[in-house]
Amino acid sequence: MTTALPTGEKLGADWALQDPRDWLECLEVTTRAVLRDSGIPASAIIGIGTACTACTVLPTRRDGTPLMYDDHWAREPHAWCKLWKHHAAQDWADRITALAHERKEPWLATYGGKISSEWLLPKVAQVAAESPTVARAAEQWVEAADWIVWQLTGVQTRNACCAGYKGLWDAERGWPTADFTAAVHPGLADLAEKLGPVLPIGQRAGTLTAAMATRLGLHPGIPVAVGIIDAHAALPACTATAAGDLVAIMGTSCCHIVCAEDRVVVPGMCGVVKDGALPGLYGYEAGQAGFGDHFAWLSRLLGAGDPGHAALARDAAALGPAGSGLLALDWWNGNRSTLVDAHLSGVLVGLTLDTTPAQIYRALIEGLACGTRVIIEALTAHGVPVQRIIASGGLPEKNPLLMQVMADVTGRTIQVARSAQAGAVGAAIFGALAAGCDHGGHDDLSAAAAAMGGLQGTIYAPEPAHAPRYQALFSEYQRLYSYFGSTNPVMHALRAWAKPGLG
Amino acid sequence: MTTALPTGEKLGADWALQDPRDWLECLEVTTRAVLRDSGIPASAIIGIGTACTACTVLPTRRDGTPLMYDDHWAREPHAWCKLWKHHAAQDWADRITALAHERKEPWLATYGGKISSEWLLPKVAQVAAESPTVARAAEQWVEAADWIVWQLTGVQTRNACCAGYKGLWDAERGWPTADFTAAVHPGLADLAEKLGPVLPIGQRAGTLTAAMATRLGLHPGIPVAVGIIDAHAALPACTATAAGDLVAIMGTSCCHIVCAEDRVVVPGMCGVVKDGALPGLYGYEAGQAGFGDHFAWLSRLLGAGDPGHAALARDAAALGPAGSGLLALDWWNGNRSTLVDAHLSGVLVGLTLDTTPAQIYRALIEGLACGTRVIIEALTAHGVPVQRIIASGGLPEKNPLLMQVMADVTGRTIQVARSAQAGAVGAAIFGALAAGCDHGGHDDLSAAAAAMGGLQGTIYAPEPAHAPRYQALFSEYQRLYSYFGSTNPVMHALRAWAKPGLG
Repeated sequence: MTTALPTGEKLGADWALQDPRDWLECLEVTTRAVLRDSGIPASAIIGIGTACTACTVLPTRRDGTPLMYDDHWAREPHAWCKLWKHHAAQDWADRITALAHERKEPWLATYGGKISSEWLLPKVAQVAAESPTVARAAEQWVEAADWIVWQLTGVQTRNACCAGYKGLWDAERGWPTADFTAAVHPGLADLAEKLGPVLPIGQRAGTLTAAMATRLGLHPGIPVAVGIIDAHAALPACTATAAGDLVAIMGTSCCHIVCAEDRVVVPGMCGVVKDGALPGLYGYEAGQAGFGDHFAWLSRLLGAGDPGHAALARDAAALGPAGSGLLALDWWNGNRSTLVDAHLSGVLVGLTLDTTPAQIYRALIEGLACGTRVIIEALTAHGVPVQRIIASGGLPEKNPLLMQVMADVTGRTIQVARSAQAGAVGAAIFGALAAGCDHGGHDDLSAAAAAMGGLQGTIYAPEPAHAPRYQALFSEYQRLYSYFGSTNPVMHALRAWAKPGLG
Repeated sequence: MTTALPTGEKLGADWALQDPRDWLECLEVTTRAVLRDSGIPASAIIGIGTACTACTVLPTRRDGTPLMYDDHWAREPHAWCKLWKHHAAQDWADRITALAHERKEPWLATYGGKISSEWLLPKVAQVAAESPTVARAAEQWVEAADWIVWQLTGVQTRNACCAGYKGLWDAERGWPTADFTAAVHPGLADLAEKLGPVLPIGQRAGTLTAAMATRLGLHPGIPVAVGIIDAHAALPACTATAAGDLVAIMGTSCCHIVCAEDRVVVPGMCGVVKDGALPGLYGYEAGQAGFGDHFAWLSRLLGAGDPGHAALARDAAALGPAGSGLLALDWWNGNRSTLVDAHLSGVLVGLTLDTTPAQIYRALIEGLACGTRVIIEALTAHGVPVQRIIASGGLPEKNPLLMQVMADVTGRTIQVARSAQAGAVGAAIFGALAAGCDHGGHDDLSAAAAAMGGLQGTIYAPEPAHAPRYQALFSEYQRLYSYFGSTNPVMHALRAWAKPGLG
C-alpha cells in the first residue's frame, strides 16, 4: 500500500506498507502450487528456509500478533507493517546520522557513516514521534523475515542478517544502547527490550508447527532455518561460500555482498555484519540504488518510440567501448555505495543533436559498470579481497552486453548464477542446512551450495583490447563522481526545487 | 550538396557545397512569384535589397564567373561554392587560431580569441592545401551575398557585414596582412588582392542591369543595396536601429546582434564590426550554436513516443520555474558564445527514474534562456549596453513558454518582431534605403525601419515572483558552465572516442 489503507485512510508521501496476512497467504498458495506442479511429495520436504525483504518491520504483541490485527489499530497506518521501501522516515534518518556523528557512536563507520531511511531505527522513530500510542502498545518490533519464521515454528528468533544490516545490531556490541535510542526519541528508551536476542544465519530456528503444516500441506516437525534477507541468501546459490567471493544481485537495483575473514572499515558500505551472510565470516554489503531501473526508465521515456531491448542492445553493441559520445553517472535512483546519498541524481554528459536512444542505452550500461568498479575498488583498497565475481538476478541472462561491459570495465571475469532466483535457491540451501547432516550429505554450507546451487557455463572475460579505452572512461567517471558527489551540491538544489511528487 | 557533386564525385565528411546557378534561379522564380501573387506592378519596385547566408564563398574569375562554370573545373569539389555550414576546414581553423595567438594578431580578440571553421580564411586555406590548382586559378574569392549583388548590378562590391564578421576584415585595418596569410599557407600570400575593397552596409552597390531586369521581370536601372548577412539584416525589420537594441534571431540556432557607439573587447563574441549591422555603429554578434535544434532532437529521440510540441509545452509549463528537477547545459551543438568551442556538448543533470520528456523539454528551455543570459551579461559587463531585446525568427511565435522563460531568466522584457522573416524584411529596408530619399520618406534607416519593420503587440515581461528561483538556477548553470567549459575537458575526450560520424 502506498496511497491508502484498505479502509481508505490516506497515507503520506513516500509511505509503503504491507499486510502480514498476505505473506501467509502467499506461503500457502505458493507451497501448495510448488508441491502440486513439481509432483514432489510432502514427505520429501525435509527442511524449510525462507528469505525476505528487509527492513520490513511491524509492531506486535509479546506473542507476535501484529497490532493491526486488532480492530482498535486497524485504521492506524503506523500500526501496520512498514515495507523496506517506506521512505517517509528520511528526516529521522538524517537526525539519527547527525546524532551518531555527534556522539561518535562506534558503529557509525560500519554503515558508511550514514543511516538509511529504509532501516529499522528511523522507521521506529517515526512511529514514536507521529503515533506515540502505537509505539507504547508495540511490545515487539519484528522483521518480516523473523515474523514469518515465528509463524512457521511458534518460536521467536531474530536473524543476524536483518539485525546487523538493517537494525544497527552487532554480534559483539548488541543493539544500540538505551542511552542512544532515548536520545533519538524518549519513546525509544526501551527499544532494545522490544528487539531481543539474535541468532547467526544458517541455524535452525525450530520446527514446523502442526497448524502451519496443515495450512501449507507439509509434514509437521520438519526443521525451519532462521530468516535471512533475500539478497544475502543468494550467496550459497551462487556457490559463493568462501571469503572473497563477491555476489552481485542485479535487478532493478544491484546489491553486492562479499565476505571476509576480518572486520575492516570500508567507507560507503551499507553494512558489515559477522555471521550475516555466511556463517563465521564478516559479510560486507554495498549497493547501487538503481540498476536495471535505468533501462526501464529509458523505455518509459521513449514510450511508443522504444525500439525494444533487442534493437537497443544491438545498436549499442555496434558503438564499441566508450563509443556513444556520452558518459552517464548512474544515479537515477540516488547513490547507495559509496556516497550513501539518496538525493543524488543522474547525469548525462556529451549529448549532441545526433544522440540516439542506443547511445544513451550504452552510456547507462557503461555508467553502471563504472559504478560497480567504484565499489570493488573501495572494498579492495580497504582490505576486503575480491577474488571472484558472480552475477545473479534477472539481468545477467537478459543482457549479455551489460555483462561483457561489466567484465571489461572492472577488468574481472564474471560468472553467472544458474538460477535467476538465487535468493530462493539460497533460502532452500539454508533450509537443508537447518535440516541437518543425515539427508544427502548437506553437512555444511559448502556441500549444500555445491549440491543445490550452481553456475552457468557462460563466463564473461574482460577483453584486453578494450582495457585502455575503458580505463580512460573510468577516470573520467571518477572525476565526475567526485565532482557531483562531493564538490558541487547542485543535485540537492534541483531536487529541492522540483515540483513535489517528481521523484 | 553534402555527399557528392551532381556528377557523382564524392565529398568528404563535414562538406557542404552549393551551386550559384541555383541562387539565380531562386531569385527569378521567387521575384516573379511575388509580383504575380501580390499583384504589385514591377513599376512599384523602386529598389532591391538582398540578404544571404555567410560565410558562403566561391572562387571566381576576375569578372565574377565561378570557376565551376568551366568544364575544366566542374568535377573538382574545391572549385564549387562552400556553404556556410561546410565544417571540413576545422583543422585549418585550429591552426589559424594557434598562429594568430602566437603572432599576437591584433584582430584576434575581436573574434573571441578563436577562428571558426565556418569562416573565409579556413575555407580558403583548405583549398590552398588540398587543391593548389584551384587556389591559383581563383582570381577572386567572393561571398555569395556579394556575388548575387554583382550579378544584379554588373558591379563588384563587398559588404562590411560579411567581410567583418566572416573574413577578419576591419574598417581601420583592412584584411589580414599578406604576412599572416602567407604564414597560414604559402598559397595565400596574395589573398587580400583576391578580396578587394569593402563598402559599409546600407550603401547603394549599383543599379539593376537590363539582362537581370528581363530575367526577374523588373525595371532596369533600379538601385540595388550592397549585400548583408541574413541575420544582421533583421535589425531594422525589428525596429532595432539604435545602439543597445539587441535582436535575437531564434531558429535552429540563435544569433544575437547588438550595436554600440564604441568598440570594446567582449570575450567570446563571434565578431565586432563597424558598419557591419547598422551604419555608423559597431555591431557585436554572439550566438548559441544550437537553439530550436534542441527541441527537434528531443522529438527525434522520442520518435513515435513524441507527445508533440503542444503536449510537451503544456506539461512543461505546469512544472513551474526550475521545477523539472533537471538542469541542462544547452550545448547539444557546441557552444559558440562565450566559449567558442564547437566540440563542447550537452549535459543533463538531475535525471531520476521519474524524469519525463516534458521535464527534459522544460530543462532545455531553461538552459537556452540561461545561455542567452550569459551572453547578455558578457556584453553589459564589458561595456556594451543592452537596453531593449527583440526576438525574431520562427521560434518566438511557436513557443510562448520559451519566450516567457527567456524574459524570466534574463529579467528583461522581450518584444517580438512582426514578421517571422525579419531577414527578408530587413533586406527590403536596405533596398529602400539604397533607392534614396524621394520615395515615401525612407530618407534614413530609422524612418525606413519604422515604416517597413515592426513589432507584435505581445510583450513578454519578467514575472517578479519567478526571479529568486531563476536567479538560483542561473547560479547553478554558471557553475556548470565554467566547470564543463573550462575546468573539466571530459567532453573533448568523449567526442574523440565516439564512433566516427556520431555528432
